[in-house]
Amino acid sequence: MNDDLLRIGFGAAFQGVEAGLDPGRMNELFRRSAEVLHKGGEEGSDGFGWFGLPDQSPAPLNETISWLRGFDTVVQIGIGGSALGNQMLSGALCHPFYNELTRKERKGPRFYVADNADPEGTAAILDMIDPSRTAFIAVSKSGATAETMANFLFFLEALKKNGINDPSENVLVITDPVKGALRAFAAETGCRSLTIPGSVGGRFSVLSAVGLLSAGAQGADIGSLLMGASAMKRNLVEADTFEKNPAWILAEASMLNYQHGRNMIVLMPYADSLNSFSEWFCQLWGESLGKALQGSTPVRALGAIDQHSQVQLYAEGPDDKFFLILTPTARHDTLMSSPGFQSLESLEYLEGKGMGSMLELEARATAAALIKAGKPVLWMEIPVVDAYRLGSLIFFFEYATALAGLAMGLNPFDQPGVEQGKKYTYGLMGRPGFEKDADEAQERFSSAMSLSVNV
Amino acid sequence: MNDDLLRIGFGAAFQGVEAGLDPGRMNELFRRSAEVLHKGGEEGSDGFGWFGLPDQSPAPLNETISWLRGFDTVVQIGIGGSALGNQMLSGALCHPFYNELTRKERKGPRFYVADNADPEGTAAILDMIDPSRTAFIAVSKSGATAETMANFLFFLEALKKNGINDPSENVLVITDPVKGALRAFAAETGCRSLTIPGSVGGRFSVLSAVGLLSAGAQGADIGSLLMGASAMKRNLVEADTFEKNPAWILAEASMLNYQHGRNMIVLMPYADSLNSFSEWFCQLWGESLGKALQGSTPVRALGAIDQHSQVQLYAEGPDDKFFLILTPTARHDTLMSSPGFQSLESLEYLEGKGMGSMLELEARATAAALIKAGKPVLWMEIPVVDAYRLGSLIFFFEYATALAGLAMGLNPFDQPGVEQGKKYTYGLMGRPGFEKDADEAQERFSSAMSLSVNV
Repeated sequence: MNDDLLRIGFGAAFQGVEAGLDPGRMNELFRRSAEVLHKGGEEGSDGFGWFGLPDQSPAPLNETISWLRGFDTVVQIGIGGSALGNQMLSGALCHPFYNELTRKERKGPRFYVADNADPEGTAAILDMIDPSRTAFIAVSKSGATAETMANFLFFLEALKKNGINDPSENVLVITDPVKGALRAFAAETGCRSLTIPGSVGGRFSVLSAVGLLSAGAQGADIGSLLMGASAMKRNLVEADTFEKNPAWILAEASMLNYQHGRNMIVLMPYADSLNSFSEWFCQLWGESLGKALQGSTPVRALGAIDQHSQVQLYAEGPDDKFFLILTPTARHDTLMSSPGFQSLESLEYLEGKGMGSMLELEARATAAALIKAGKPVLWMEIPVVDAYRLGSLIFFFEYATALAGLAMGLNPFDQPGVEQGKKYTYGLMGRPGFEKDADEAQERFSSAMSLSVNV
Repeated sequence: MNDDLLRIGFGAAFQGVEAGLDPGRMNELFRRSAEVLHKGGEEGSDGFGWFGLPDQSPAPLNETISWLRGFDTVVQIGIGGSALGNQMLSGALCHPFYNELTRKERKGPRFYVADNADPEGTAAILDMIDPSRTAFIAVSKSGATAETMANFLFFLEALKKNGINDPSENVLVITDPVKGALRAFAAETGCRSLTIPGSVGGRFSVLSAVGLLSAGAQGADIGSLLMGASAMKRNLVEADTFEKNPAWILAEASMLNYQHGRNMIVLMPYADSLNSFSEWFCQLWGESLGKALQGSTPVRALGAIDQHSQVQLYAEGPDDKFFLILTPTARHDTLMSSPGFQSLESLEYLEGKGMGSMLELEARATAAALIKAGKPVLWMEIPVVDAYRLGSLIFFFEYATALAGLAMGLNPFDQPGVEQGKKYTYGLMGRPGFEKDADEAQERFSSAMSLSVNV
């Protein structure tokens, strides 16, 4: 295994759009954008706080992690950026069936995420836990996120029903340092509380307490995670030409392909452990860059599974996608052997090969087939999926996304487009002050139902 | 609860493309396509077998299901259409943490799917099972699917290591009636075997033994599933005008929106239990319609979670998507109540409301916000997520997908575009007869690596 964090092959990333490449302009654009990024934004701008997260020490979280590890179960109550990062870290660094292992095998409390406000999902979590022996981490910067607060009420009620009227023994809130209901709740009850740094947005918060606590409770090496992120940061900050900087290359390739009608970016890792990484990436990319009538749509795929689901469309459908194929070069591999049945003779070609080696060859084969079909492909390799390399990969995508946003002249750290739906929900829920929104929502919704049919 | 299987509101499904609507032409086109579908295709055509599946009796599967239920664990070894349907049925009809329940609570064996050829994922399944007390259902029509056969070898080896040299006690194969390694394996070992009807393709096979056995073993009511599918079939076959047939409407809306640059179709159910339904839909839609340089890309979303991840892009990004918002109108709801903390006063608007009612209002709010932003939205309602309605929903999407394919002049039942990658994989694996493919794959892959950078 080599020491590199990430290797990319970009010889086919601009397939069909090479004519648009202008290294001079590009270097200038990205140098300027990187400068803004590295100094933490222009004066008065916000959202750059994530850039400093890799350099923090994990030590201040140790006491909280020890506290969490004293419970049977940890439930994270949060949605979007307060859940996807946790699921990504658990998916990449924990056993795939972590909660089904015995406590001894697991080496940490069981872990659930209460993100959606689906009463059936929330009730199912309650089926699995003893609330009195469960730590609840409630995460909302504003303290107003409807789904999160609904789940928070639900689990407070469950504590009460289990005889726990003082929730401070079981609850930790992570929220704004001053404002909002969760901050007030901490003051009222004296429960544990941590702060989401003001300049860190939800989708960029995984390397803060928001993401690190649950991973640490599950036994992940969060020190290595941060060190990996920090190493990537150093490398990216230092590389100041297009040819040397994979984040510049990804940003440019996504922009150029988008301008040429490729309005989707497909992230297709070849590793089960990176499946939830793609979900996390989809929020990061979609919310950061999808605005002002622009934005390529992130599409999550998983190799080799999606060879049997989406590759037909990828290969023979329209030329409207830019592909990122991501694979670790080392895995815990297992040799395939023949069980000695004559009927399985046709499988001789598998014998003596590693199943993981086959998976990597499938990644290469898919890249080759897409390239043959004229599609743009960026090849991405990490040495292995471990905490150090995962941290570096997280930071890589955060950096590339922010850089692309700045280069496109967008604010990659806001999400004004979600406000309308929130107001409509408040209105329809009868929240005081949102009566006009209720009327408007009803009117818009009625237009959908103006033509309807039942079967 | 009403008796309907599905209600759609399509007043906003053609937003912005109304000018292209031509009911006369449309009725003619779909009437012709439906005719082809109902008679099982033109002479010599293949793949229409799924159309008959709803009308089969589940009784012939009973004995096999009883056999499966005698085991501690069932492992389905299959990929794509031999896995996604199983995951969809389990996700919709079983407890979300089914495998974590006790045997008494579960009422059936634990269930795992070995789909990917990721050695870490496969080894993790082995960690969880006692092979000697596990039933393995190996599914591959050809008996040659590399990932499936690799996993099959792996678990045969595991049986052997557990002292089981005669796998016939533990293995069931579902494969071609005559051809292939799995059929030969059944003949050699005398293990149980079932047949994938010749005219049923993988992505249309969920209502055959491929999908039904594992669901039945888990205690799902597969009789109701088939009855629901059958009821939907009757309704769709009878409704022979655009205004009366929701499948015609979906097919037309997707085609017309696609022709106007909306090259994505987003399926966004508002129910955790339908999350894996979307994965199943993505294969069905993508592989059936993504060919001949055409095809809208299916995008999976989940409400309300993706309001906090993708809705920013959906609302303010480019006008390149057609949205299907799907919600059950009844759920096992739970009332939200106030736990009596002064700090949580701002949540009063939640008190006394159902969490599930809120989720449905969020679906309406999202639809309204997207409609306001000028995006086309098809509203879809089912009464509840149960076996009967799930069966009907499955058949609805199969029918609409096949119909759209026929109307577009495509063969919705083939997948020629996956062959190239398979050949490249065989070549790279050193399988005899694929030497030229190995060279070509290597050459294409090298073009990606002709420019590379490490950090």
